[in-house]
Amino acid sequence: MRKYAIILAGGSGTRAGGDMPKQFRQICGRPLVWWAMKAFRDADADMEIVLVVHPGFFDDWQILCDAMPEYERIPYTLCCGGRTRAESVSNGLLTVAGLLGDAPAGEAMVMVHDGARPLVSAGMIRRGMDAFCVSGAGVIPVMPAVNSLRQLAAPSVSLAEAESHTVNRALYVEVQTPQIFPYRLLCDCYKSASDLSAYTDDASVVESAGHHVRLYEGESANIKVTHPDDFIIAEALLRARAGE
Amino acid sequence: MRKYAIILAGGSGTRAGGDMPKQFRQICGRPLVWWAMKAFRDADADMEIVLVVHPGFFDDWQILCDAMPEYERIPYTLCCGGRTRAESVSNGLLTVAGLLGDAPAGEAMVMVHDGARPLVSAGMIRRGMDAFCVSGAGVIPVMPAVNSLRQLAAPSVSLAEAESHTVNRALYVEVQTPQIFPYRLLCDCYKSASDLSAYTDDASVVESAGHHVRLYEGESANIKVTHPDDFIIAEALLRARAGE
Repeated sequence: MRKYAIILAGGSGTRAGGDMPKQFRQICGRPLVWWAMKAFRDADADMEIVLVVHPGFFDDWQILCDAMPEYERIPYTLCCGGRTRAESVSNGLLTVAGLLGDAPAGEAMVMVHDGARPLVSAGMIRRGMDAFCVSGAGVIPVMPAVNSLRQLAAPSVSLAEAESHTVNRALYVEVQTPQIFPYRLLCDCYKSASDLSAYTDDASVVESAGHHVRLYEGESANIKVTHPDDFIIAEALLRARAGE
Repeated sequence: MRKYAIILAGGSGTRAGGDMPKQFRQICGRPLVWWAMKAFRDADADMEIVLVVHPGFFDDWQILCDAMPEYERIPYTLCCGGRTRAESVSNGLLTVAGLLGDAPAGEAMVMVHDGARPLVSAGMIRRGMDAFCVSGAGVIPVMPAVNSLRQLAAPSVSLAEAESHTVNRALYVEVQTPQIFPYRLLCDCYKSASDLSAYTDDASVVESAGHHVRLYEGESANIKVTHPDDFIIAEALLRARAGE
């Protein structure tokens, strides 16, 4: 079975602080997105990595790669980021099509991963691949919600004005990546979806086309680097993992 | 106005690793719960702290306190933890009643804080007190959900078997502490609630009695130390805050 990891590093924003988009900032001496690439390569030596980058940062990324020692460079295919997450995934799927060539598409597996999650472990990726093979359907990693949750009566109002109510936390899980799908299924769902901007992850695109997804266990350390503090957190976790 | 912080450190479990309950483990050279006590004292010099501890750990806690230099000791009133979170809050409220004595109970404010949140900042606590004064009602801190969320069809089934569906993340917020209430209101709600074990926080107890709560903005760093990795995260954030 051919295995592809589409790693999304297509954002161009600097909300998390710094001059560069967060996925290219250095963390423990390497660009943030490199850590996820390494985890996928460590999980399976046959994994082919498609890295989605905003074209405005192709040169910056190349400079970062050139600065790395030869033995730490990870093979990948570069792909143009889109204006939205969904467009980036679509572009990634087109790149996978090119890599597949004449190989049977029905046997390919695609893992979509958020490049801002550098702490994904090779073990978790392998657990996801196992779950995928057992279920035959798309599988996505989840974790129980740690905090109590409330539902707002309406989005985007000021907090002080917001009406909200408690929901039963035991009924909710937080979704992580990598989300893993049969290549052909994911392509079909992205083609048939009407308004792709409405979806925050791939599972919801697949479900909107009437397909089920199954769950597998994520990891609490597999955080999405979002706030400036998250760089401190990710660096501390990477150091601890390296035994420093 | 009299201000009381009930800091919940009543757990006796060691799920997060180590020999001692997590709230007593050392973090940056101090017991974890000490950091929250310090934040409340820093937020307001008049704050009275009620520390809820499982009676089986009174001696251990005293040893930890004795090991601290005099100038770092924070005044507090010790209170017996209950078998459940709700029982611990109820015990804390009884202790507050004793501290209030003949002072007018109608003018007291109670902040209930999870002792496993050492990163709460004095600034956030002051923001909460301001929100409380403006609203006159109970106020609780929330943050937008970072991860996509899914709702399970039923709790406590194995993940591989679970049926679930995507929910609109923009409609959900994650709840933190301190949650701040008029003392008398919180007492009344705890007295009138029928099955206290059903509630994961104080806001839901207050709402079950028919009262509204308002929201204020929490902080992403205000994590609840739950998993073993969270000690590494909390220590890194405390060090960064100290400018190390």
